[in-house]
Amino acid sequence: MKKTVFLLCALLVAAPLLSAEEAKPVPLSNGIALPEAYKNFRLIGVSSRSDDQTLRAILGNDIAIEAARAGKTNPWPNGTILAKLGWKQKTSEKFPAATIPGDFTRADFMLKDDVKYASTGGWGWARWIGLELKPYDKPDYAQECIACHSIVKDQDLEFTRPVKLP
Amino acid sequence: MKKTVFLLCALLVAAPLLSAEEAKPVPLSNGIALPEAYKNFRLIGVSSRSDDQTLRAILGNDIAIEAARAGKTNPWPNGTILAKLGWKQKTSEKFPAATIPGDFTRADFMLKDDVKYASTGGWGWARWIGLELKPYDKPDYAQECIACHSIVKDQDLEFTRPVKLP
Repeated sequence: MKKTVFLLCALLVAAPLLSAEEAKPVPLSNGIALPEAYKNFRLIGVSSRSDDQTLRAILGNDIAIEAARAGKTNPWPNGTILAKLGWKQKTSEKFPAATIPGDFTRADFMLKDDVKYASTGGWGWARWIGLELKPYDKPDYAQECIACHSIVKDQDLEFTRPVKLP
Repeated sequence: MKKTVFLLCALLVAAPLLSAEEAKPVPLSNGIALPEAYKNFRLIGVSSRSDDQTLRAILGNDIAIEAARAGKTNPWPNGTILAKLGWKQKTSEKFPAATIPGDFTRADFMLKDDVKYASTGGWGWARWIGLELKPYDKPDYAQECIACHSIVKDQDLEFTRPVKLP
């Protein structure tokens, strides 16, 4: 009994300390963990969406960038990771003709491996919500993704075409 | 005479070969050359502008990224290079709620050095137009930039605030 009380007390003391640390996102039940290096991925594209009033940046890991620059993205090579980062649209106070990123909405990832993810179109699909990176974890999550991405089956299930840069 | 004719012929033969090579952008008369590594810069921000119907990606070199992540961007440190890349807005054929990058419009750069560029607000200003990277080279170019950027004098003359990422 004493031990249990002690442990409970210890937990109560430790909990706020733990939550004050940087949030470590929980891996999804499909086994995909947040690709930690995603902030250092490089530019694949940008978009503005009227359906959910977001601005997006689409970034890629080294394999994705090499494929994009070589024009070899249909299919994307195994090892590709694409990060799709979203922010609520906000009007710039300083320059009202500009719509700029407001609150961070979510981080979506597509991980290409046509063996590992053969049952979900050759891609692993993952999403974390908000700055707190809350896992978006549903049993039928991949099917939800594919239902929409099947529109671009002829582009290896990926909407984004890499931007042209001089 | 023979020599002149020979040289003219040589030039006529060589010219198409030279133009077939990758376009090398001409440095501006302010001495600023295109920062060649800009495609590998990392994400600082995105925007959508209604005044010129463009989508933008704002990228930064390592010094800029380090400053952005440390929240030390007012002022930005010397050595910062910010690249502002623009594309005409285009409606996605596959997903019409998305506005995506069309033709590349221009690459703007801001290079921070409060000694070297003391006379132009501590920044070097540079612009190249289109995929052919045509120099936008006017004697009063920096003043044209500053005239607008002075709206954000309290943000070290830079409109973009780095995006928040988890």
